[in-house]
Amino acid sequence: MVVLRSYVSGSWRAPEDEGAPLHDAVTGEEIARISSAGIDMGAALHHGRAVGGPVLRELTFHQRASLLKALASHLREHREELYALSARTGATLGDSKFDVDGGIGVLLGYASKGKRELPNDTVLVEGAVEPLGKGGTFVGQHLCTSSRGIAVQINAFNFPVWGPLEKLAPAFLAGVPSLIKPASQTAYLTARLVELIVESGLLPEGSVQLVCGDPRDLLDHLTEQDIVAFTGSASTARLLRTHPAVVGNAVRFNAEADSLNCSVLGPDATPGTPEFDLYVKQLVAEMTVKAGQKCTAIRRALVPAPLVDDVTEAVRERLAKVTVGNPANPDVRMGALATLDQREEVRRSLKALTDAGRIVFGDPERVEVKGADAERGAFMSPVLLRADDTARAEPHEVEAFGPVSTLMPYADAADAVALAARGRGSLAGSVVTADPEFAREVVLGLAPWHGRLLVLNSEDAKESTGHGSPLPALVHGGPGRAGGGEEMGGIRGVVHHMRRTAVQSGPAMLTALTGRWVPGTDRTVTDEHPFRKHLEDLRVGDTAVGGPRVVTLEDVEHFAEFTGDTFYAHTDEEAARANPLFGGRVAHGYLVVSFAAGLFVDPDPGPVLANYGLENLRFLTPVKPGDELTVTLTAKQISPREGAGHGEVRWDTDVTNQDGASVARYDVLTLVAKRSERG
Amino acid sequence: MVVLRSYVSGSWRAPEDEGAPLHDAVTGEEIARISSAGIDMGAALHHGRAVGGPVLRELTFHQRASLLKALASHLREHREELYALSARTGATLGDSKFDVDGGIGVLLGYASKGKRELPNDTVLVEGAVEPLGKGGTFVGQHLCTSSRGIAVQINAFNFPVWGPLEKLAPAFLAGVPSLIKPASQTAYLTARLVELIVESGLLPEGSVQLVCGDPRDLLDHLTEQDIVAFTGSASTARLLRTHPAVVGNAVRFNAEADSLNCSVLGPDATPGTPEFDLYVKQLVAEMTVKAGQKCTAIRRALVPAPLVDDVTEAVRERLAKVTVGNPANPDVRMGALATLDQREEVRRSLKALTDAGRIVFGDPERVEVKGADAERGAFMSPVLLRADDTARAEPHEVEAFGPVSTLMPYADAADAVALAARGRGSLAGSVVTADPEFAREVVLGLAPWHGRLLVLNSEDAKESTGHGSPLPALVHGGPGRAGGGEEMGGIRGVVHHMRRTAVQSGPAMLTALTGRWVPGTDRTVTDEHPFRKHLEDLRVGDTAVGGPRVVTLEDVEHFAEFTGDTFYAHTDEEAARANPLFGGRVAHGYLVVSFAAGLFVDPDPGPVLANYGLENLRFLTPVKPGDELTVTLTAKQISPREGAGHGEVRWDTDVTNQDGASVARYDVLTLVAKRSERG
Repeated sequence: MVVLRSYVSGSWRAPEDEGAPLHDAVTGEEIARISSAGIDMGAALHHGRAVGGPVLRELTFHQRASLLKALASHLREHREELYALSARTGATLGDSKFDVDGGIGVLLGYASKGKRELPNDTVLVEGAVEPLGKGGTFVGQHLCTSSRGIAVQINAFNFPVWGPLEKLAPAFLAGVPSLIKPASQTAYLTARLVELIVESGLLPEGSVQLVCGDPRDLLDHLTEQDIVAFTGSASTARLLRTHPAVVGNAVRFNAEADSLNCSVLGPDATPGTPEFDLYVKQLVAEMTVKAGQKCTAIRRALVPAPLVDDVTEAVRERLAKVTVGNPANPDVRMGALATLDQREEVRRSLKALTDAGRIVFGDPERVEVKGADAERGAFMSPVLLRADDTARAEPHEVEAFGPVSTLMPYADAADAVALAARGRGSLAGSVVTADPEFAREVVLGLAPWHGRLLVLNSEDAKESTGHGSPLPALVHGGPGRAGGGEEMGGIRGVVHHMRRTAVQSGPAMLTALTGRWVPGTDRTVTDEHPFRKHLEDLRVGDTAVGGPRVVTLEDVEHFAEFTGDTFYAHTDEEAARANPLFGGRVAHGYLVVSFAAGLFVDPDPGPVLANYGLENLRFLTPVKPGDELTVTLTAKQISPREGAGHGEVRWDTDVTNQDGASVARYDVLTLVAKRSERG
Repeated sequence: MVVLRSYVSGSWRAPEDEGAPLHDAVTGEEIARISSAGIDMGAALHHGRAVGGPVLRELTFHQRASLLKALASHLREHREELYALSARTGATLGDSKFDVDGGIGVLLGYASKGKRELPNDTVLVEGAVEPLGKGGTFVGQHLCTSSRGIAVQINAFNFPVWGPLEKLAPAFLAGVPSLIKPASQTAYLTARLVELIVESGLLPEGSVQLVCGDPRDLLDHLTEQDIVAFTGSASTARLLRTHPAVVGNAVRFNAEADSLNCSVLGPDATPGTPEFDLYVKQLVAEMTVKAGQKCTAIRRALVPAPLVDDVTEAVRERLAKVTVGNPANPDVRMGALATLDQREEVRRSLKALTDAGRIVFGDPERVEVKGADAERGAFMSPVLLRADDTARAEPHEVEAFGPVSTLMPYADAADAVALAARGRGSLAGSVVTADPEFAREVVLGLAPWHGRLLVLNSEDAKESTGHGSPLPALVHGGPGRAGGGEEMGGIRGVVHHMRRTAVQSGPAMLTALTGRWVPGTDRTVTDEHPFRKHLEDLRVGDTAVGGPRVVTLEDVEHFAEFTGDTFYAHTDEEAARANPLFGGRVAHGYLVVSFAAGLFVDPDPGPVLANYGLENLRFLTPVKPGDELTVTLTAKQISPREGAGHGEVRWDTDVTNQDGASVARYDVLTLVAKRSERG
């Protein structure tokens, strides 16, 4: 008999007892045994903090991103094996792809965002430099540094691959080691996932650990720098949230709990419209994918009162075509629930729901099963309810965590919003409509109650990932019943694993602390033009000064004629005088930046390969004919690219007039070659 | 006898019993009585949600910001009265200004940030449009909407004005009503503050309420959309955080708890250096301002071992000059603690601290008091301890919330970081050094344990607001012992009161939802150039198309000569061919944007007053001589300015070549007049 091992403190440990049995959802046979007896939880947490953390924190965001990408490739190579194991959880191949490929997609999403949106550094500088004094000698900025603790993830049974990877990716990118505690029911799949990760040798030792079985005293050992990310039931969330070590140490605690997500059909989406069909198709998909065991699945289908009969009929018709059975059978569209216990739980919830509504499709106690034994496997029919009395509490409060949804009528947009709010907080909602006004009213009304909202119609249907799919670029989590948490959301999810600290100092000190040149810091003007320096030789603060150059009236007139930019402020003195901002003819802003480039550029071939963009350009003082321009260009941020022959250099650019006033201020973005390219 | 009233559900309510006495900290006489008997807490919360919330949410961020500014002016006119009442809490005039002017400063800070950094809208669009499909028909973006609940603030006794205003400002700006529950000891000052706010008539009814006295069943009535912001002791934080309504509804809970903040002296800051003096001066200020009753005050003074004697002497000398007594006396430098109970509490904590250290200045039981009765008023001497055995737990764990600090030696930067971390999370820390390397090592080591860090030296000393002052632009809050919370931090503090929702849809629908043109949405090209339209007549999506125009080799050569930008990529075919990005001569990026302006500009005077800047310019495809440029300019965001004759319009600008490839993409920023200006 296979006994699941835990990966803690650098090695695989078998439990000290026989453990409890885990069963195949389809055949009911025993798959593995699980127990955490004898696992030293405190030592595991300490190992993560003391061994994994320091090594991870030495890597830059870009290096961590590369490891995530490599891990994604490694797992992709082994996905068939994961699919096969996933089938034993009751999942169809489609379900397994949702779980496995979805998880790999999160790794790739974070790898990509990490490279594009984070610096090649270990510290994240967040937001602008804040002036804190009028004299410019006291400034502030926010730094995000890696939490010194460990991210403990406590996962739900329904996504044994996506769940851990979705939490691992942002934690890893943030430089924080993870300890994975899967739900027992499907832990054999997560355990294989972690074996693949460990076997790959890609991630530093200590950055990923696994505890199979009861968490026992795991939480007792939490400290101030640790993070707990939980996905599961609201009742367990409450228990964990009030654990003495969590409360006493103000441990960051994030919960994603199942919620009574709604999908709203727009009044425009009458039968025959593409939106009507999209609504029905999506509802059936949400009921049957993963046999409805998704915390984001549609539980409440809100439909304009006049369309309820039509929707009921269309959904029934579509559900009737769903074949339930052994996922190994190619005809099967919906597999089994994860366990027989889970099925019992769904049946219990259905009893409460039928107090407030009636079943219009399916029998909770009976289902025709293809290729498997209906009693030994955790099979169940999809069940559609209809609750015409929307004032009843049950449809808004009782969740049947299976292939179950309730159709409800609504009167108008405000009623739909009010009904949705009765769910008291959801992970996801959707609005199916082609009417922008209806969509806007419902989306803005639903937003305070939702973590994610999908507007589905023929514009996005082809590419839409659907109501139930969290995506790494978007936040996942909702208020109230949904747990009040927030995960992913791109770099936001990375920052959740870091500590944001406001740093106050003088500008030169801030430059030293952040490695980015802060205005007010001394500039280094040398004989050698900084454009002659390779990336490794450039220093933040290196400065070129060009000019002065007088801008003549002839320059302005010529530029107008040459470019065709004959805006009156440049060409017509009288009209320009009437302009409230200029009070007379002014040089083109584009002329100013063009002349500035002429003043700062170093013409010969050298390490600066290109000026690939500008940022935050503001024209601050009008330039009048006769004004004299000087440009000061200062290396502000130097970002080497991993594994490339160049890096990016951002230059603070200040164009001033003869009075020393800034006339234009911006950042020039350049690509600069590394010395090694030539050496 | 004055009985403090509560302002709830639209009127001032006196308690139904006699209440408990509050005492003047200086004279011991009874000032007022306090009780919440008979106050209907559930009704008050409901009033905020049902009356205050909807009116607030109708206002735009800019309108709310204007009200905060007006409120600040109103309070400033009444500050003398607030100072006078503040003196009765034991505060000197300096202390009172810290509290009162500090609070007004937060209002002004948020008013200013609200106008500059938030849109003139009721919804905040956050972050970039995220592409979610390769075909561009499925995109996502995050919206922040006002929480539909009420922000309940539970404040500490030490900042009866700053405390409520610091929490009110971001909540109000977010469109969320507040209920203020001051600590009883100094509630008479907060009650007067709220009277001034209500009397001003500036804020919408229901947006600010006050409960004086015991909160009783207040928290029982919390729901999913409410927010609790607590400042006070760690033990009360634990109690509130685990309240069943908070836990059960996943109510957002923010805690700021007192912490054992440290200040680190750099090894460079030997006696005679400005930094040595700054350190000593700041330490004494932190011990004595508000009689040390600041949650950010320095409790642990970490000093290089060889300098401990020098620092001890210098601090003793300076403390000896601190006159304690009645704040009404102009010689007095330090007033009383808030209550006699508070003094007893400090004395108790000192007993624990003296187990691990020895007192080197002050007698906890005796102090010479000027202008008041030492026994009836809550006076106490500043007390400096010295703990040479830094391994002891007490100095890192026992907080005496009064004029008390402990000096401790450290060996090197790593030791200083390790000692600081033994505080297990702090609100604020400081490093006093002129050495950037030392500063960087200590700041990055301390950052994960701190919400705010000050580097103090002669560069910023003149303008520095000091170790103990939270500022509206910077986050306030720290991990672990400090409560794990985060407040203010500029717009971050506003977003804390909003719900972030990921919205997914097609681009045209996202344009409709956000009011910002999203690429992929149809453009509206009309006969009238959009530059001819006033702000009110412009619509998102209005588009001008200009071109095509061929860029000739002569153009490039002429531009090089005219501007002086003779970079080889534009002037030397052979050298340009060797450039890895260009592979031949290319037109200047500045030429491309100048020609583009020539193609999109409408020359005659009209509503467009100026092109005041560019953002996010990227050169995407090299432009070769002979290429033909077309520019497409589309109104992307239209932002009317409150009370001004114009607004800002952001134009999506796409310059394409003859193959339809984008060669440059950027946002053009313009000022556009309102029609009313002319009418």
